[in-house]
Amino acid sequence: MADLDKMANVRIDGLQYSNYDRELFEDLITAGLHTIHVTLAYWEDARQCMTLFSKWNRHFIDHADLIMPVKTGDDIVKAKELGKVGIVFGAQNCSPIDAELGLVQVMNDLGLKFMQLTYNNQSLIGAGCFEDEDPGISRFGKNVIAEMNRVGMVIDMSHSAERTTLEAIDISSRPIAITHANPTTFKASRRSKSHAVLKSLTQRGGMLGFVLYPLFLKDGADTKLEDFTEMVADTADKYGVDNIGIGSDLCRKWPYEVVEWMRNGSWTHETVYGEGGAGVREWPKQPHWFQKSSDFFKIEKGLVKQGFHSTEIDKILGLNWYRFMDESFKPA
Amino acid sequence: MADLDKMANVRIDGLQYSNYDRELFEDLITAGLHTIHVTLAYWEDARQCMTLFSKWNRHFIDHADLIMPVKTGDDIVKAKELGKVGIVFGAQNCSPIDAELGLVQVMNDLGLKFMQLTYNNQSLIGAGCFEDEDPGISRFGKNVIAEMNRVGMVIDMSHSAERTTLEAIDISSRPIAITHANPTTFKASRRSKSHAVLKSLTQRGGMLGFVLYPLFLKDGADTKLEDFTEMVADTADKYGVDNIGIGSDLCRKWPYEVVEWMRNGSWTHETVYGEGGAGVREWPKQPHWFQKSSDFFKIEKGLVKQGFHSTEIDKILGLNWYRFMDESFKPA
Repeated sequence: MADLDKMANVRIDGLQYSNYDRELFEDLITAGLHTIHVTLAYWEDARQCMTLFSKWNRHFIDHADLIMPVKTGDDIVKAKELGKVGIVFGAQNCSPIDAELGLVQVMNDLGLKFMQLTYNNQSLIGAGCFEDEDPGISRFGKNVIAEMNRVGMVIDMSHSAERTTLEAIDISSRPIAITHANPTTFKASRRSKSHAVLKSLTQRGGMLGFVLYPLFLKDGADTKLEDFTEMVADTADKYGVDNIGIGSDLCRKWPYEVVEWMRNGSWTHETVYGEGGAGVREWPKQPHWFQKSSDFFKIEKGLVKQGFHSTEIDKILGLNWYRFMDESFKPA
Repeated sequence: MADLDKMANVRIDGLQYSNYDRELFEDLITAGLHTIHVTLAYWEDARQCMTLFSKWNRHFIDHADLIMPVKTGDDIVKAKELGKVGIVFGAQNCSPIDAELGLVQVMNDLGLKFMQLTYNNQSLIGAGCFEDEDPGISRFGKNVIAEMNRVGMVIDMSHSAERTTLEAIDISSRPIAITHANPTTFKASRRSKSHAVLKSLTQRGGMLGFVLYPLFLKDGADTKLEDFTEMVADTADKYGVDNIGIGSDLCRKWPYEVVEWMRNGSWTHETVYGEGGAGVREWPKQPHWFQKSSDFFKIEKGLVKQGFHSTEIDKILGLNWYRFMDESFKPA
């Protein structure tokens, strides 16, 4: 691992899903972010992921002055040194491996370093948070977890149901992540995480990324920055300051059809509005203080005002993610 | 590049397609081979290649003491130092990239370092050697060649038709390969290569691998080792000794159905026997002096008897392939 002093002020967003173009990449630079974890896939299968990777390969050529791929902790160090934004790829579902255990390594070789085991629904591995029943981790799932542990792909349980999440934490031989979610005490939602989950997650060295997606904020778009930083402080009090970060879930420049597809995929012919409320055919509005990546500075100011020490702020805004990724991305 | 003196006696087989198991890997070690180029795919598409890569990933785990993946010239040096056999992957057709230009880089990232542009038939890129018409390189093909040049994936024209081959040599900004074929002067066959092709290929720094597949040997299985080494000498006289190597095309432990599938893929409902002759439902017999990888030694003895100097033999049996691969596998 690189000198932690040198990396102390690294800034990392633990999840974004935007329709990236040069303007958005420039905004990441303005934000002072050194690395972001971007969602490559929601419902896409293995073959479709190849096309998504090739689209990103074009981004890396067309915007080589702004971004670079990240597969290791050393790549994050390099991105910071070069003044570029490192891009870590993840999937919000296990669809990228189809039903084939060997594709864990193939996807890892292509640079998929995070994978959710479920996205809202029952998957081949476990239950998503919107299912009524939660049978926990399947037979295939146990093999997938072991394989992810072996190659150094991080298990992400952001959209998973409670029992499935707790079992994943237990079964995994390495710490896992919940890249983008808030505690249920902040917002009662099927997407929020219970004390039992957060305790087990952090005790095993796992990471929680606080989400800024408005449906999981206390008062939606009206949530105040102070409310958010108070939640961070409350969580730090309960679970310490070493296992928390930001996973903003920032989604920019997408038409409404994309959030509809995120919710509906190809698994239903009805329209599912999720927690957006029936009939609301638009992306949920962001709070005024977090509209874009470069608003990351405002969170930093908020944490100062909340009373966090600068070393704590460094941990929350990037150093914790850096340490976690550096360790987790290595093969076992 | 590593010290050429250190690599002088490197031994490389420029093409094999066997049903590998521990016995065959051990035979490669016995052969004194340091690297082989193996065929990953014939007709398989992008998705199917992911499964083929994952099968090889299991081989690398199960036989880690014998084999290792090779993506660069340095990997060949490492394999030689470790006493392992390096495995370079190639495809005998352009099917691994479907109809999608971006998949060239994706496949290269997964370790596909050679790709034929056509396999016997017309492809999206050009004409195979068994087509009656040869329109040369297509619009898509020109883009694919440029992309292969960029990422460092070698163009292989072993099974391509004459005009398509000559155009590929011209269009490519980097030297190309014919990994496994013999001159037409040795064996009249649609799979053999004309003087025009061999002259253009070698003048541009491209490589020819002499094939030991019996259908492309002068007298089939009855061809004498002396006939083979005489062909090597004749070719060296005409085109020099720096652009020739071995691409044995050794195929072991496959049932007959596999050669049938190699010939028929899914493009016909009739049975095509290729140059094997109608009704011959078996793999062609190998000459007695080349039945297995460890018979590579006999070729070496034959080349000595033929009058080659030891430095020439080193070039033909591996050093030329090493230099070519080391240079060609680098991104442009």
